[in-house]
Amino acid sequence: MENFTFHNTTKIIFGRKTEETVGKEIAEVLKEKVLKQKGEEKDKAYNKYIKILLHYGGDTIKKIGLYDRVVKSLKDEEFEFHELSGVKPNPVAGKVREGIKLCRDKNINFILAVGGGSVIDSAKAIAIGVNYSGDIWDFFSGKAKPQTALDIGVILTVPAAGSESSVVSVITDEKTQIKKGFHSHLILPKFSILNPELTFTILPFQTACGAADTLAHIFERYFTQTKNTDLTDRLCEAAMKTVIENTPVVLNKPEDYDARAEMMWASTIAHNGILGTGRIEDWASHKLGHELSAIYGVVHGAALSIIFPAWMKYVYKFNLRKFVQFAARVWGVDPFFSSEDDIALEGINRFKKFLKEIGLPTSLGELNIGSDKFEEMAEKELQWGLLGNFKKLNKEDIIAIYKLAL
Amino acid sequence: MENFTFHNTTKIIFGRKTEETVGKEIAEVLKEKVLKQKGEEKDKAYNKYIKILLHYGGDTIKKIGLYDRVVKSLKDEEFEFHELSGVKPNPVAGKVREGIKLCRDKNINFILAVGGGSVIDSAKAIAIGVNYSGDIWDFFSGKAKPQTALDIGVILTVPAAGSESSVVSVITDEKTQIKKGFHSHLILPKFSILNPELTFTILPFQTACGAADTLAHIFERYFTQTKNTDLTDRLCEAAMKTVIENTPVVLNKPEDYDARAEMMWASTIAHNGILGTGRIEDWASHKLGHELSAIYGVVHGAALSIIFPAWMKYVYKFNLRKFVQFAARVWGVDPFFSSEDDIALEGINRFKKFLKEIGLPTSLGELNIGSDKFEEMAEKELQWGLLGNFKKLNKEDIIAIYKLAL
Repeated sequence: MENFTFHNTTKIIFGRKTEETVGKEIAEVLKEKVLKQKGEEKDKAYNKYIKILLHYGGDTIKKIGLYDRVVKSLKDEEFEFHELSGVKPNPVAGKVREGIKLCRDKNINFILAVGGGSVIDSAKAIAIGVNYSGDIWDFFSGKAKPQTALDIGVILTVPAAGSESSVVSVITDEKTQIKKGFHSHLILPKFSILNPELTFTILPFQTACGAADTLAHIFERYFTQTKNTDLTDRLCEAAMKTVIENTPVVLNKPEDYDARAEMMWASTIAHNGILGTGRIEDWASHKLGHELSAIYGVVHGAALSIIFPAWMKYVYKFNLRKFVQFAARVWGVDPFFSSEDDIALEGINRFKKFLKEIGLPTSLGELNIGSDKFEEMAEKELQWGLLGNFKKLNKEDIIAIYKLAL
Repeated sequence: MENFTFHNTTKIIFGRKTEETVGKEIAEVLKEKVLKQKGEEKDKAYNKYIKILLHYGGDTIKKIGLYDRVVKSLKDEEFEFHELSGVKPNPVAGKVREGIKLCRDKNINFILAVGGGSVIDSAKAIAIGVNYSGDIWDFFSGKAKPQTALDIGVILTVPAAGSESSVVSVITDEKTQIKKGFHSHLILPKFSILNPELTFTILPFQTACGAADTLAHIFERYFTQTKNTDLTDRLCEAAMKTVIENTPVVLNKPEDYDARAEMMWASTIAHNGILGTGRIEDWASHKLGHELSAIYGVVHGAALSIIFPAWMKYVYKFNLRKFVQFAARVWGVDPFFSSEDDIALEGINRFKKFLKEIGLPTSLGELNIGSDKFEEMAEKELQWGLLGNFKKLNKEDIIAIYKLAL
């Protein structure tokens, strides 16, 4: 086991109707700060100093009545708030810059992200940009490190990205088509409200993409060369099995509260850091997938669904026992039915079959993507060094994996 | 699944030699607070305002060289510190009062607990007592609620109690022999340093008691009447299996770093709240065990080792399927080998056999404890209401369980 630090301070508020408490949660986060700035310990009108950016995507939150409930809760607390909607999947730097400007113009001191990973990631980028004089992309390119951030709160509507309690934001620069992640404890949300009822209307394809994204976050941690990771291996397997069992349930019964709750809590735990403790994580497949999203606009979960089986087939021999364990413990392959190679491959096959059954693509061909940009994609990905840790991937490896995904 | 809030802010610093950073960790916690009080944002001599209570048990931490390393780290930061040692297993209110007086006399603003659950629980009680004008027992009896607490940091030496990232402190009042828990987010440690090397010298019996305590913390959450708890069930099972597999390893090879690391991280995760999310917890067995500790001075882990198999035998029919799941998933009992009753009982038998194999008592008889005080114990336990939730235990139930444990 590797030495590690684990420090996840996000308050999770989980369950039915929890979004109705959002105003009070914001008050709890900001009250002390606002009063300190004002130097008046007992001022009850602190709420007039709280200015919120309400950040979201499209009309979905209005259709399901969520928007109205959020606005009511903010108004009940007499908070001033300003809206910025229009965040799209694979959120872009342009929208982030728009948010930064709005926050500065309106003296905003809290960002409420209502949506899925894209909205939250956009909110996180805005949060670090407001008090920075340079351009937001400096943080993503590694040119600068943020010193402060606005506080962020989340109402989650899509269980997938895990951004609701992660230290990561992933943004795409429209000009260069580069999709890149940024890590900092500064952008950990202060609270995240998770109500499974809000996920009832997620369409089947998006539900399946969320499942693939959750599984991918677990895989990036599970497949490691670190030895002696008994507990975290088993915790990872617990989360994987939960997703594998509950995905078909929610696809058949979109309003099954308990199954939606399992999917939602699993997606958060998959990415809150605890499953990665004590082990060297991989993250090559995410980078291979980001490239598909940046160049071809492939939905994140679908990109992972295409990449992961190919990555697994390419790397499994570099830690065969781990893939045998995966096959046996997660997919129920008899650990003695054949050679270790066969067992490992059978596990990967069952995973691929699962992805197909829940309606996801597992090859580039299904999206009419050919091999013409493989070289270019590999070169772009390698500009920050070799990819991953399970096996460090060079250009030849990357192209081979993309070819396996054809 | 039940609605829940999960908010655990303790920073975990895990691994070899991590105790050497303790001075810097304290500085990180207190620096901002101290500077704010002083109103001097850029004063570098803030460390002279930090006064620490170094709280520990006996000579063990000196024998393993830990004391010297801690003192060096505190001196490197030029912190003033005062010592209070002598905390015993089942920590008592008298020692807590001594700590409170010392903190007041010396203007202490940080408590560093170096030890296991007893030391940490004692530190937590001191932390809430310092700024309270009444007696510390008021918090445990429910007569008063604390409004503030001193900050606490931990260097853990015994993986068992999980107090290093829990909201609980359990103290015994010497006069009445009442052992009682108190819950509050105020007493969550700011950081906990977990170095498995510090556990190499724990004696076999104490190691086994730690394993029983860890398993007990998981059981109290696992055995629930709440339906649809797939993920947390599986997470619980993951932690149980880790303890069951690694306990014999550390008993045979006390200096096996990786196995000690698994035990240590499992004991923390067992009690940091995540395994209990979305479910109604039980905690009857802990109360039955506390009574044995309070009256007969039984070590906490040994008390749980005696109580849990008896409790399981008494209650398993109230959720048979859960005990079948426990037998099959945790103890590898074939889920079809016989009737569900037989399968459930076989799981409990295997658990009891495991406890014996690791050297723990599983009956009161082994400790020469008879039935003469069962009535009195049951009455004492029931003064705050029926025990537990899996099955709410009345006086008759409690006596029946104690009898099963004879």
